[in-house]
Amino acid sequence: MLAFECDYLEGAHEKILQRLVETNYEKAPGYSADKYCESAKEKIKQACNCPDAEIYFLVGGTQTNAIVIDSILQKYEGVIAATTGHVNVHEAGAIEHTGHKVLTVPSYQGKMQAEDVRSLLQGFWNDASHDHMVFPGMVYLSHPTEYGTLYGKQELKEIADVCREYKIPLFLDGARLGYGLMSKNTDLTLEDIAKICDVFYIGGTKVGALCGEAVVFTGQNMPKHFMTMVKQHGAMLAKGRLLGIQFDTLFTDNLYFEIAEHAINMAEKLKEGFRQRGYSFYLDSPTNQQFIILSKEEIAKLADKVTFDFWDPVDDNRQVVRFATSWATKEEDIDALMTLLDEIKR
Amino acid sequence: MLAFECDYLEGAHEKILQRLVETNYEKAPGYSADKYCESAKEKIKQACNCPDAEIYFLVGGTQTNAIVIDSILQKYEGVIAATTGHVNVHEAGAIEHTGHKVLTVPSYQGKMQAEDVRSLLQGFWNDASHDHMVFPGMVYLSHPTEYGTLYGKQELKEIADVCREYKIPLFLDGARLGYGLMSKNTDLTLEDIAKICDVFYIGGTKVGALCGEAVVFTGQNMPKHFMTMVKQHGAMLAKGRLLGIQFDTLFTDNLYFEIAEHAINMAEKLKEGFRQRGYSFYLDSPTNQQFIILSKEEIAKLADKVTFDFWDPVDDNRQVVRFATSWATKEEDIDALMTLLDEIKR
Amino acid sequence: MLAFECDYLEGAHEKILQRLVETNYEKAPGYSADKYCESAKEKIKQACNCPDAEIYFLVGGTQTNAIVIDSILQKYEGVIAATTGHVNVHEAGAIEHTGHKVLTVPSYQGKMQAEDVRSLLQGFWNDASHDHMVFPGMVYLSHPTEYGTLYGKQELKEIADVCREYKIPLFLDGARLGYGLMSKNTDLTLEDIAKICDVFYIGGTKVGALCGEAVVFTGQNMPKHFMTMVKQHGAMLAKGRLLGIQFDTLFTDNLYFEIAEHAINMAEKLKEGFRQRGYSFYLDSPTNQQFIILSKEEIAKLADKVTFDFWDPVDDNRQVVRFATSWATKEEDIDALMTLLDEIKR
Amino acid sequence: MLAFECDYLEGAHEKILQRLVETNYEKAPGYSADKYCESAKEKIKQACNCPDAEIYFLVGGTQTNAIVIDSILQKYEGVIAATTGHVNVHEAGAIEHTGHKVLTVPSYQGKMQAEDVRSLLQGFWNDASHDHMVFPGMVYLSHPTEYGTLYGKQELKEIADVCREYKIPLFLDGARLGYGLMSKNTDLTLEDIAKICDVFYIGGTKVGALCGEAVVFTGQNMPKHFMTMVKQHGAMLAKGRLLGIQFDTLFTDNLYFEIAEHAINMAEKLKEGFRQRGYSFYLDSPTNQQFIILSKEEIAKLADKVTFDFWDPVDDNRQVVRFATSWATKEEDIDALMTLLDEIKR
Repeated sequence: MLAFECDYLEGAHEKILQRLVETNYEKAPGYSADKYCESAKEKIKQACNCPDAEIYFLVGGTQTNAIVIDSILQKYEGVIAATTGHVNVHEAGAIEHTGHKVLTVPSYQGKMQAEDVRSLLQGFWNDASHDHMVFPGMVYLSHPTEYGTLYGKQELKEIADVCREYKIPLFLDGARLGYGLMSKNTDLTLEDIAKICDVFYIGGTKVGALCGEAVVFTGQNMPKHFMTMVKQHGAMLAKGRLLGIQFDTLFTDNLYFEIAEHAINMAEKLKEGFRQRGYSFYLDSPTNQQFIILSKEEIAKLADKVTFDFWDPVDDNRQVVRFATSWATKEEDIDALMTLLDEIKR
Repeated sequence: MLAFECDYLEGAHEKILQRLVETNYEKAPGYSADKYCESAKEKIKQACNCPDAEIYFLVGGTQTNAIVIDSILQKYEGVIAATTGHVNVHEAGAIEHTGHKVLTVPSYQGKMQAEDVRSLLQGFWNDASHDHMVFPGMVYLSHPTEYGTLYGKQELKEIADVCREYKIPLFLDGARLGYGLMSKNTDLTLEDIAKICDVFYIGGTKVGALCGEAVVFTGQNMPKHFMTMVKQHGAMLAKGRLLGIQFDTLFTDNLYFEIAEHAINMAEKLKEGFRQRGYSFYLDSPTNQQFIILSKEEIAKLADKVTFDFWDPVDDNRQVVRFATSWATKEEDIDALMTLLDEIKR
Repeated sequence: MLAFECDYLEGAHEKILQRLVETNYEKAPGYSADKYCESAKEKIKQACNCPDAEIYFLVGGTQTNAIVIDSILQKYEGVIAATTGHVNVHEAGAIEHTGHKVLTVPSYQGKMQAEDVRSLLQGFWNDASHDHMVFPGMVYLSHPTEYGTLYGKQELKEIADVCREYKIPLFLDGARLGYGLMSKNTDLTLEDIAKICDVFYIGGTKVGALCGEAVVFTGQNMPKHFMTMVKQHGAMLAKGRLLGIQFDTLFTDNLYFEIAEHAINMAEKLKEGFRQRGYSFYLDSPTNQQFIILSKEEIAKLADKVTFDFWDPVDDNRQVVRFATSWATKEEDIDALMTLLDEIKR
Repeated sequence: MLAFECDYLEGAHEKILQRLVETNYEKAPGYSADKYCESAKEKIKQACNCPDAEIYFLVGGTQTNAIVIDSILQKYEGVIAATTGHVNVHEAGAIEHTGHKVLTVPSYQGKMQAEDVRSLLQGFWNDASHDHMVFPGMVYLSHPTEYGTLYGKQELKEIADVCREYKIPLFLDGARLGYGLMSKNTDLTLEDIAKICDVFYIGGTKVGALCGEAVVFTGQNMPKHFMTMVKQHGAMLAKGRLLGIQFDTLFTDNLYFEIAEHAINMAEKLKEGFRQRGYSFYLDSPTNQQFIILSKEEIAKLADKVTFDFWDPVDDNRQVVRFATSWATKEEDIDALMTLLDEIKR
């Protein structure tokens, strides 16, 4: 059975496991006060070229979104997101669970537009009754988005400009950041992101780690007593070394970027294979998630030989499905998938 | 200065004040255990022809929405509302403050449509990853809506049918219910509403009371320990008699309906006056709120002689404004407004 | 039937009702933007001799406690209260509902001691693992307490000094403040309280109003966007005039103080009556609540002739009960109670 | 430097790391739908002799406490815990963050007593105003406690009996459960615990795992849509295999029990060593945490040669400190500690 349903099917990059084994019996203090966390933070600061950065390691993506948003927002504020944003749709209301509203702007293939954000903010401040409304207190966006799409440097800057104009922070959810950075079609570097955003996170779970996300506050703007809020959210890991060692490994010798690049290469090959065979794409994704339109018949023929994920229906007969590559995808599996596609055409 | 900006400009109907004075020195137990609350509940049950109803008096509308929704929803559930719904826009996030998401369907002049509700519910249950999403746990609608519009009996039944199909309750926000019931263009009676909805409230604040909303659970479905949740929300009134006496008075000799009818008559006169003078309406409202399109010039001319409320801009030169009548509107004030309109035309 | 069970048995002082009637048809803007609220605020500022004060009117006590505490605390903070504090026992978890813990210190007849507060704060800051704990973020106390007792000026200052030392605000719950101020055994004036506390409220519900509490922030320290947080808590009253008119009346010609003094006089008479008849007191209360120890036999004999409230049991045969006087207590009712006591002795 | 400060200083048992390596490139579905989670659940059910059990894997202890408590409690309920309970002191208000109050009973060396729980429940239900109070909705206790102490089988049954009488569930926090089960002084087996408690968790983080706690609902009583509430709390792990593989390994060939027994043996040796050298114990702990009273002088002498944790001060000169052993403690380190103790005596 081939598997392309998501980008978290395997464990961790073998160098990570190797270092977990090597360091296993070292005694390290708990709660991320260990030397691996320290070292990982230094390497990430360098990778971001952001010496002022404050970094905190958390376990998962929804957890990170909820804690970052809740710890930054004032009680009367909400967070602006695209209607398709992960925090608005697929986090079981984790943001609202902390008492904050998600204020939505339109989604264009997963992306928001600066003009819509400005319009929401203008509308709010011009509304005579805005004291009766949720104050827009920050902007959340994901890069790559839930649809694999990417912001251009100019686009991201424009959103950041609106944020600065209205004095609210910009938060970038980088659960799949590596795949965005190594896309063939991006002009945004990690350093750019650290310059443009107030806070973002570098996803580990989907890019080579067993678990883990590295939150980067870019301007000495980590909320006061952030650690206590992490604890309050039930998110503090006793053996913080687990996160430190993973990120330390990922940010040694460019591992994070190399394995992300591999996933992109595999995605490009997969994409080209589908294209050559005449398949339609739901949208043109430059990252590791590819959204392809299949007929029910095609889906039925593939169903017991390869796994993929189901997205929106197109019409009664057709469906958008997602094929994802990752740091662990083997080229031979892409080849096998293409052979499979050739077979079902017969 | 004429004033039409809202329907809560005056105190209370004089019969209410009179009974507050008459009963003032009677000693009554606190927290709505008094005889006036009991009597008011009986009268409301009769007016609804709903002997099984359980009734609870609260102070204001946002408070009522937050408590009813929070006390009914499971922790993993959200409430479905129109994008323009009061709970989604003008309650400062009171619903999210209780940990629940507002799930939106499109608004058509303030109203939702059964098909959109069904579509949201179907989409949720058909989504393979719905365990990662907020469960839609009830439907909230307002009647009249924030735009003064009304559901027809058939429309409301269709929404209720969807609710029953998906086993979720239907909650009707009746902050202005009296004005809906006495509209010239409605086929919905109070009895109908009690039959169709699982819970609704009869607005007092905007229909003759100093404050107060009467929540009606129509099928012995008041959440267990509702009173404690009211206390937890900081909404329990020590001198519950204040609410009991007001609703007892409003539901004695049809007072609630008579004063609401007066507001409707005044609104019809106002509407007819604007229509005759060639003004455009933003929409055709059958209740006490009228939405009229004025040019900036007209607004400027009226500004120091009459108050009204500002709604959405139409274009660079024109703006929707709201004129509201109420139980307390004097016919002479409508006449004076018409005179004023005639003057600014000159 | 005589009634002494609580201090909110009647409606409102007749001057309040009279002014509600007189002003009823004046048109006033909503949400406390009316002239009565303005006037009431000015009079309260003067009564407090605190020109910098910012004042906000709310409806009830639990509501006020929850909003003041929630709006002041950071998300990682809790509030210090005596174990017997209203917020810790009798508000159905309204504080925890907003996400904040109540941190307790011992209660001495309802009062906390500065040394216990200091000890809690020292203990917290000296604890090496305090990042895993709730930060103590403010002190809450009630005056009079739930047991009718009062802080002396020196005692209150000492608590305030601890607060200042640890840079946390002091909040005084004055649900029965009038009765504390007019006690024969107090050296604390309203001006003192405004000087010593960062925020406090002047209770209306139990001192002559139908409902209403006046929150006083004493140092231009009202939390930013407090109004929006009030709305978010469902506590904003549409017809704010109801609160404004009541407090404006109470703070005209010393009415608030005069009616509170009447309650104290009645309490002293009641106390003296019980004392002369040999009854034991649970504690020596200098305010309008008197806690008396009755045997089950005495309770049984009184039960169908007078109402009072049940407090803690003393032993198998005896029980603490509360008799409360109020602004509305009639001297003839005290006399009748004494006659009753004489009868049951026979 | 010797280290005895806590029981989470090392990584994971080597068999766990070995299996992580072996299974690393297997493709497994996310969110604990993998075969390792299934297998681990089966083994835990067998170890508990509880075929009806429903099991869910979470990452950490505070997270587990918050989710279990929040998902079980009704909105108007709180949880009963000892004053020293982890949920009451060291979770940064994680329970209150979900809106629920922690209701406390006295702590006796970390344990609660059935009579105090009964007394709290009786007091609540007998209180005429209990509708204004937080309903006690479940009992939380830890075993071993924060002080290393253990409940006897009879003691636990008595608490469970009170819970059953008042129809509330009993939740046992087993963050260190292994060390409790393998104590030389316990009559409670895992099977007993599964029979007596409604829900409990088997701690992995402190007993051989990198992270992970296995929640066991013992009577098909897992709350409806528990998974969605886990997501809402930000606690769902994408690569659930990480938890499944760890618990599958720990519950293969009695590994969990064997490594816990080792820690107990090491603790007994450490305890005996201190005892022989005349040290006083703060209390008699039968598990892996030992609380010893040291003078400041002794602390100073040890400080740069061994780490331990600081507990409560005894008096100006003496302090309670904690020495913890774990699954990873080496016997030679105990020996070295004893040599050190001998040295500082000279």
